[in-house]
Amino acid sequence: MADNLRVAVIGAGRMGADHIQRLHSHIHGADVAAVVDIDLDRANAAIADIPGAKAFATAAEAYESGDVDAVLIATPGFLHEAALLEALERDIPILCEKPLTPDAASAWKIVEAEQKLGRKRIQVGFMRRFDTDYAALGGMIRSAELGELLMLHCRHRNPDTPPGFTNEMLINDSVVHEFDVIRYLTGEEITSVQVRLGKATSKAPAGQHDPQHVLIETESGVLADVEIYVNAQFGYEVATQAAFEDGIVDIGGDGGPYVRRAGRWGGVVTPSFIERFGAAYDVEVQAWVDAALRDEIGGPSAWDGYATAACCEAGVEAQKSGEKVAVTLNEKPELYR
Amino acid sequence: MADNLRVAVIGAGRMGADHIQRLHSHIHGADVAAVVDIDLDRANAAIADIPGAKAFATAAEAYESGDVDAVLIATPGFLHEAALLEALERDIPILCEKPLTPDAASAWKIVEAEQKLGRKRIQVGFMRRFDTDYAALGGMIRSAELGELLMLHCRHRNPDTPPGFTNEMLINDSVVHEFDVIRYLTGEEITSVQVRLGKATSKAPAGQHDPQHVLIETESGVLADVEIYVNAQFGYEVATQAAFEDGIVDIGGDGGPYVRRAGRWGGVVTPSFIERFGAAYDVEVQAWVDAALRDEIGGPSAWDGYATAACCEAGVEAQKSGEKVAVTLNEKPELYR
Amino acid sequence: MADNLRVAVIGAGRMGADHIQRLHSHIHGADVAAVVDIDLDRANAAIADIPGAKAFATAAEAYESGDVDAVLIATPGFLHEAALLEALERDIPILCEKPLTPDAASAWKIVEAEQKLGRKRIQVGFMRRFDTDYAALGGMIRSAELGELLMLHCRHRNPDTPPGFTNEMLINDSVVHEFDVIRYLTGEEITSVQVRLGKATSKAPAGQHDPQHVLIETESGVLADVEIYVNAQFGYEVATQAAFEDGIVDIGGDGGPYVRRAGRWGGVVTPSFIERFGAAYDVEVQAWVDAALRDEIGGPSAWDGYATAACCEAGVEAQKSGEKVAVTLNEKPELYR
Amino acid sequence: MADNLRVAVIGAGRMGADHIQRLHSHIHGADVAAVVDIDLDRANAAIADIPGAKAFATAAEAYESGDVDAVLIATPGFLHEAALLEALERDIPILCEKPLTPDAASAWKIVEAEQKLGRKRIQVGFMRRFDTDYAALGGMIRSAELGELLMLHCRHRNPDTPPGFTNEMLINDSVVHEFDVIRYLTGEEITSVQVRLGKATSKAPAGQHDPQHVLIETESGVLADVEIYVNAQFGYEVATQAAFEDGIVDIGGDGGPYVRRAGRWGGVVTPSFIERFGAAYDVEVQAWVDAALRDEIGGPSAWDGYATAACCEAGVEAQKSGEKVAVTLNEKPELYR
Repeated sequence: MADNLRVAVIGAGRMGADHIQRLHSHIHGADVAAVVDIDLDRANAAIADIPGAKAFATAAEAYESGDVDAVLIATPGFLHEAALLEALERDIPILCEKPLTPDAASAWKIVEAEQKLGRKRIQVGFMRRFDTDYAALGGMIRSAELGELLMLHCRHRNPDTPPGFTNEMLINDSVVHEFDVIRYLTGEEITSVQVRLGKATSKAPAGQHDPQHVLIETESGVLADVEIYVNAQFGYEVATQAAFEDGIVDIGGDGGPYVRRAGRWGGVVTPSFIERFGAAYDVEVQAWVDAALRDEIGGPSAWDGYATAACCEAGVEAQKSGEKVAVTLNEKPELYR
Repeated sequence: MADNLRVAVIGAGRMGADHIQRLHSHIHGADVAAVVDIDLDRANAAIADIPGAKAFATAAEAYESGDVDAVLIATPGFLHEAALLEALERDIPILCEKPLTPDAASAWKIVEAEQKLGRKRIQVGFMRRFDTDYAALGGMIRSAELGELLMLHCRHRNPDTPPGFTNEMLINDSVVHEFDVIRYLTGEEITSVQVRLGKATSKAPAGQHDPQHVLIETESGVLADVEIYVNAQFGYEVATQAAFEDGIVDIGGDGGPYVRRAGRWGGVVTPSFIERFGAAYDVEVQAWVDAALRDEIGGPSAWDGYATAACCEAGVEAQKSGEKVAVTLNEKPELYR
Repeated sequence: MADNLRVAVIGAGRMGADHIQRLHSHIHGADVAAVVDIDLDRANAAIADIPGAKAFATAAEAYESGDVDAVLIATPGFLHEAALLEALERDIPILCEKPLTPDAASAWKIVEAEQKLGRKRIQVGFMRRFDTDYAALGGMIRSAELGELLMLHCRHRNPDTPPGFTNEMLINDSVVHEFDVIRYLTGEEITSVQVRLGKATSKAPAGQHDPQHVLIETESGVLADVEIYVNAQFGYEVATQAAFEDGIVDIGGDGGPYVRRAGRWGGVVTPSFIERFGAAYDVEVQAWVDAALRDEIGGPSAWDGYATAACCEAGVEAQKSGEKVAVTLNEKPELYR
Repeated sequence: MADNLRVAVIGAGRMGADHIQRLHSHIHGADVAAVVDIDLDRANAAIADIPGAKAFATAAEAYESGDVDAVLIATPGFLHEAALLEALERDIPILCEKPLTPDAASAWKIVEAEQKLGRKRIQVGFMRRFDTDYAALGGMIRSAELGELLMLHCRHRNPDTPPGFTNEMLINDSVVHEFDVIRYLTGEEITSVQVRLGKATSKAPAGQHDPQHVLIETESGVLADVEIYVNAQFGYEVATQAAFEDGIVDIGGDGGPYVRRAGRWGGVVTPSFIERFGAAYDVEVQAWVDAALRDEIGGPSAWDGYATAACCEAGVEAQKSGEKVAVTLNEKPELYR
């Protein structure tokens, strides 16, 4: 039998801990070999029930242990650049949580470093591509069974935001998923972004203008709009409506048991992205592990990370100006075509 | 312009008051000319905002006033027989709320009296036949677009029951509608009834075994079952699922605004039959008025009232015995074929 | 009993014929006394089954017949101004199908003429205000049970367009309803309109850019957007999603029997506005008749007609410029406050 | 790192092949070590893409290879008894696809053999217990948040049946799942079964009376009914509606993208049990593997297999007699309490 992929997970916070459990409990062909966190207690806590896994304070120590075949980066975004460059030097399979890096310039550096390596080593954690609903919608677009896609109406709603969530993070942390999904669904790059700021909720912390209405165009003229609303109170919701020439498709509807009680019919809203996209994370990580065992990547590339970083930059500028801001990209390297 | 039909409404209780407002506010071609109630104060209250209407303590007085063209009977069921015979003597159009009469023997007397008259004067208030959902389902059955109908699963749920609602009334007041609808949908008579009594809710008043599971067969072998549950707390629901050779059809689903709030998605359950079937009552009464102006009836006949009374008798017997009870009917008179 | 309101219907085309049948079959307290159409054959055809109704080639003849108490104007919009002025001279109750008139200047003339009369005689046919879903949503906004309203996402989709439907008519004939509804729901005037033209369907006739994305702001900053898509093929759909501080509300969902057949679940899309808003038309016309019998109006006023005409003018300008266009209104006369 | 569980899969037919791919692609901590099928070509085909797995014609050979830690039995039910007894002799963890055995007497022999072993080695493949919807409904019942459970209405529909599917198999292969689920949800044994045969579909093969209506009672008097309909054409559906004292719960509704097209709204019906319960199979097998590594079982026991076999026997008798048939069970051994 083939040996399991020995994975080092960098970052043992919320996302990291989630991935550690996923690798340990659901994913065939991989084991958690190492957990890296500058807070060594947190790293040790994360491996408490995982026989054979070791905790380290730095990635270098983990790599030098000789037990690591691949790395999953789940630290905050501003630490990604260094971690990615270090992992690229080791020339091992990398799954990097989104964003690739927080801005287009640093993302481009990663793209360049990977190009020097001559093969794709980085898969970026845009897990929506592995969600069955988005996959089904993508299939309808590519098959043209409903004719051409004309418009996308996207909703991204969170119940509330953690402390320190800034106005820019509405774009960089939340709308970034929509940028990737719009690129994935249309197969096109985004050409402009505009942001409308209207009436704001009284539930948002100081400094956040919430909700916002983000207007997006793609190369062929598909119009998308995103309601980004991160203090929406009622629960978590990510939904998209697509208008085609011959029909309309909605994904992201509510599910679960249907209850009639006390004068109301309905069910329970998904409480967070964990429940909404848990299965997609499983599929994403399994795809990465399967590909890593073949020395390939199994999902969005560093180019996708770079292109969405450029969209985010335009989005933040558009937040400030209220005007339509063009998205400009470097030429796409051969490696990613 | 044609003169409006001058209607006497007998009974100014809940159903009667509802019909009085309907005739006065929504129905073209009819006016409330008289309201009859042994409680004259109640009759007067019911016509307070209706110019030209008069209150009477007895139907005889209303008829003798000379202002009455037709009669709508909305008293409790045990008073129907006398009221119907009196109206038949006048040979005027009659809309009689269900049940025609409370038992098969008295219902047969009405059928005989109408036969002597030689034309159909009585329309029975089985208003579900005028509901758009039941009408659509009936159309699917008759068109055979989904093949033959094989089974019907019916749900009849009330939030609670008024004082004095007996175990027999689960059959006579509630399941009676299902008997009529099953006959209407299949175009067949019902041949047997069985009742299962299982675990009972603690919310039912003494003397009621609630819910009950009623098993019904029709002439061609269509199997129907009814969950009759009259202290269901959550709200009002009348729904049917039909299994055909080529598909399944559900009617009676929830509607209204779709709300996401406080961790839940959903909407408001219909609170009572008034909201659920209000539009059907409007259509029913308009159909009766339109037909009455042509000296015809516009809905279910006295035969339908008689046949459902026979089903109710079998149902009450089946409640007691737990056995399958056959439904037997007199031969159908020529007038109703 | 009170005499019925004798109504003259001007225009026996699609909308007119529909209103004639409605008045004749469903509306309590009104009769069709006269039908006016320059095509006298069409007028005669429309009254064929209505005893007592008369056909005329001009409104003047109908008024002079002495049998007319009120008028319902259902001609094309460009004929409204003359018909309204003539009816205002008669000082009778008027129900005028939307638009009041095709532009803000002529609409203002109507407002001025009505002011001279000193009382509101004109009700404008924005029937969505009488739809149960819009009414429920309006109630939620006014009660603030979900906190403040922040955004509205509107969809207005038609299967296709009749010959001669121009690009401007997307705004003037279709979005006009959204303008009125947004004003009605928010209780605010609209302050600006922008239009995005992206990828267009191949199913639109020459000269139409379809679909379009219309961006709307109200006085308090509520952001609304409308997808107007008039060659959407699949059927008719009018739906709105409202984002509040404490929840999300959707109206305009699909309904009817739920069918599972041949590998698919679902039901029948509403084919046209007739089915979608038929009940709302009934309620609207009944409200108008009831009010007319009291010499009042029972719905949106000439001011609402004028204000939406101003929105339409801005919308058409925005279609051409791609820029945000401000909506400017004359001061609201005392009569309409 | 812990060694993976080396699993032998007996039977490489539809279910077996499915489990082989599951163990090889999705399940953490297990590898397919051996595939056993009397058709050795089929066994070899099943392991074509699985490095390290070996094919055998008999289980004995697989066990003697020394590479097997646990066994998954996926042969037709009539072969289960021998395979179970052989595996019990080896005293290894067993996952046995349902039914445990085809009749109560042989199932009881398995229970006795396991008792002699003194610990639970057999987990039976009633995977619905691992479905999120059934688990949620079970949680609502146990929490009594909606009061006591009163009735269950179950629907089990298949598009069609494979050749050789007999009338008894409606009970033994399909309703068997409902028997287990009703026992699991209520935490009670089933006390009686009755079967109603009404109008049959023309789509059923000779010898099958389809659909059937199965009436079930539990110890506390909960009434359940099952529509078993195995030639339902439209697709696959397994759904349950539960009536509680304070509300109604539905599980098993349709999902996936919501499409409006060509005059219809809706989506795609689940085509088969694979799509409907694929995730539940994953969770079931992962639970079994996790438990097996601790020398435990992680799901329904041999007792559950025996008790459902007794229900099936009563069900088949009830098919023939039309009468209510009591279900009688041996005393529950200490091991399973």
